[in-house]
Amino acid sequence: MKTNTQEWSQTDQKIAYEALTKAYARETEALIAEINQKASQVNHIDEIWALNDYLSSKRYNIDGKYDFRESASVFVLAQLVKEKWLTLDELTDLTPSTKAKVAALTKMS
Amino acid sequence: MKTNTQEWSQTDQKIAYEALTKAYARETEALIAEINQKASQVNHIDEIWALNDYLSSKRYNIDGKYDFRESASVFVLAQLVKEKWLTLDELTDLTPSTKAKVAALTKMS
Repeated sequence: MKTNTQEWSQTDQKIAYEALTKAYARETEALIAEINQKASQVNHIDEIWALNDYLSSKRYNIDGKYDFRESASVFVLAQLVKEKWLTLDELTDLTPSTKAKVAALTKMS
Repeated sequence: MKTNTQEWSQTDQKIAYEALTKAYARETEALIAEINQKASQVNHIDEIWALNDYLSSKRYNIDGKYDFRESASVFVLAQLVKEKWLTLDELTDLTPSTKAKVAALTKMS
């Protein structure tokens, strides 16, 4: 399976990069809204440390997922669709075989 | 200088423990209020990560400082006075020599 940038067409690379940018904006905006809301309800120090752990985990996950040097990955695109940060419709202009791979991966658990 | 619990009188140990409990409540309540307020103003992902770093640093500092197994330390009491989580007046019932050591340490940078 073609999974890295070198093997993708320039058009596919551009579409994947834009999709990743879009998903990143959505996911980080959702996190900001969640923290704004969560932090306002914190009233015990244990909840502060739980928030700290939650943010560390989110940061690890987000930093790992959005690697823009390697944006053209069917695995990352499929993961973002599964997590609902992207829809398959937004990847409609990908080469049909690439899009089919992403779609197939979204059906795997 | 007598710095550990074994060498302190029971009364001094009790006073130190209560002082530490009081300072811990004050410092953690101040942190909760600060996070409630700071987090409500966050509107960029970089500020979320900065908040995460700030919490990690606070946690390390607080966990290290409030070691209740070793609460009878003139160094910790002096540090808490310097940081304004305790006043010397609140340690007034300590043995005079112990209180004098704490007071002397608060004047060191």
